[in-house]
Amino acid sequence: MKAAVLHEIGKLPKFEETYPIPVVENAEQQQLVKVLSSSIKNLDRGKVSGKHYMSYNKFPTTVGIDGVVELDNGDKAYAFGITGMIAEKALIGKGKYVVLDKDVDPLVASALPNAILGADMAMLIRGQLKEGQTVLVNGATGVTGKVALQLARIHGAKKIIAMGRDKQQLEDLQKRFKLDEIIVISDNDQEVIDSVKTSFQKQPIDLVLDYLWGRPTDLVLKAIVAAHTYHITKVVTIGEMAGASITLSSATLRSTAIEILGSGLGSFPQNAIEIYMKNNLNNLLKLATQGKLTIDINTIELKDIEKNWLHDVKGQRTVVKIN
Amino acid sequence: MKAAVLHEIGKLPKFEETYPIPVVENAEQQQLVKVLSSSIKNLDRGKVSGKHYMSYNKFPTTVGIDGVVELDNGDKAYAFGITGMIAEKALIGKGKYVVLDKDVDPLVASALPNAILGADMAMLIRGQLKEGQTVLVNGATGVTGKVALQLARIHGAKKIIAMGRDKQQLEDLQKRFKLDEIIVISDNDQEVIDSVKTSFQKQPIDLVLDYLWGRPTDLVLKAIVAAHTYHITKVVTIGEMAGASITLSSATLRSTAIEILGSGLGSFPQNAIEIYMKNNLNNLLKLATQGKLTIDINTIELKDIEKNWLHDVKGQRTVVKIN
Repeated sequence: MKAAVLHEIGKLPKFEETYPIPVVENAEQQQLVKVLSSSIKNLDRGKVSGKHYMSYNKFPTTVGIDGVVELDNGDKAYAFGITGMIAEKALIGKGKYVVLDKDVDPLVASALPNAILGADMAMLIRGQLKEGQTVLVNGATGVTGKVALQLARIHGAKKIIAMGRDKQQLEDLQKRFKLDEIIVISDNDQEVIDSVKTSFQKQPIDLVLDYLWGRPTDLVLKAIVAAHTYHITKVVTIGEMAGASITLSSATLRSTAIEILGSGLGSFPQNAIEIYMKNNLNNLLKLATQGKLTIDINTIELKDIEKNWLHDVKGQRTVVKIN
Repeated sequence: MKAAVLHEIGKLPKFEETYPIPVVENAEQQQLVKVLSSSIKNLDRGKVSGKHYMSYNKFPTTVGIDGVVELDNGDKAYAFGITGMIAEKALIGKGKYVVLDKDVDPLVASALPNAILGADMAMLIRGQLKEGQTVLVNGATGVTGKVALQLARIHGAKKIIAMGRDKQQLEDLQKRFKLDEIIVISDNDQEVIDSVKTSFQKQPIDLVLDYLWGRPTDLVLKAIVAAHTYHITKVVTIGEMAGASITLSSATLRSTAIEILGSGLGSFPQNAIEIYMKNNLNNLLKLATQGKLTIDINTIELKDIEKNWLHDVKGQRTVVKIN
């Protein structure tokens, strides 16, 4: 079969045409499916580069953790792979999939689940977003950030602020998604602090969905301290595009009602993601089909996997078309 | 009158015998009271040293932010001072006090409010402690830490863990307050991490009341990550005896359900402290009178204020006997 194959940790996956089709070893726990499409995310890259604690350790191996498959009865479904999902065929857990509505676009369906985890679950389960609240998306020009802007509105946020480095992109997003405010992360710390502080004093922020961490998050925290305005603000870290760590003083937390927490695989109860996808994936895909929710996608062919592995087109999710 | 008087920021308050009694300038907003006792806390010290943003700025001045007073009708009350409270007389806000039950010990009543703020409000309002939960007090040998150990039990915590540097003191506390577990903060990082991790894996911790911050808190966070056990753990920073800052990685928060927040003046809604004291101070003082809640006190005379200003007896609140 055609597949993206990794021969050594830290190398790039290569396109191969005659890789052996995986064999079902336990028919009660596994099933073989045809894969329609898969996406490339940080988690996929981390397992290939060796940075993830569950990196690949037997070679050669197919790669890719999840995707949209076709079941024997012709149904399309979203599933995690036991074997690599960037391949024409893969093993998945027996019955472990979410059947998708008929009219769903498989490319969107393979791109959206990661954004649901990083935006919808982050804002609803970890951030406890309520109707009428004010949300700041820090890192709003990224692929998940853009989905978060839209989902915050769908879930009833009253005021949505997009924060990011690229002024032009922020202005485009403001028009596209009718955002209430944009804040540019310039190189001038005080300028950024003042912008967030002024915004906070006008309308305190209930939820920060943070895809950046590092300096921009530090500036947001400093701004909330400087605002001297009592308000419970949840800061949910989802990504670390600007830095892996911040220096956090006790005084920052004692002088505000900020609550800092994270959204990632370890921050949810067991099976929560599986259950969430079962309950919500089709509804969210329906919004996408209706044009009410957009995820920006860069579609590539399986044969081009190697040259596209390391880098996304900025603000787009790379999706691999397979069958 | 006799009073503790500060002549210059950063100096020590001195005992004076003929300081002028403060004058009521607006009888609708102020009243003059006799002060029975006052306590010396970090906030009092910060306003004298210049470290606090609301430090004294007119000199000479009496010092001390709160204390137990005697009203004109003979009632005892707890109040914040408009003028310094480590003085025989002080101005307080008209009617702004909590009348104390008759049998209350004024020395205890001047020591306990700060511990209520740092322990009771921290665990109930910020930490949302529920009956049956597991609480770790990080910095348990301090005066407020010891009150927290007792209040956690009073509020129904099922398992209470005391963590601190001094093994002997922890063992004494374990006997005195029938604690479930003690963890010594040794110089060996891995040893501390393993102790907390093992404890967490046996019984996940719901609430960390943290008086230390810095290295010990960092080790607690690392231990919870290492425990690989999904559980919502609130970490409430109340003090910074071990360090003003920690380095906090996004990954720590994404791989756990830790929520980090603070408990301090800025973390409560306006008037929350005043309201809390009105509603709870007498009940908690009653527990103290009944011997069910102990706060360790070092009582000093007003004339000895200067030599006692900077340092508490370890684990004891310094209380100044005035009238």
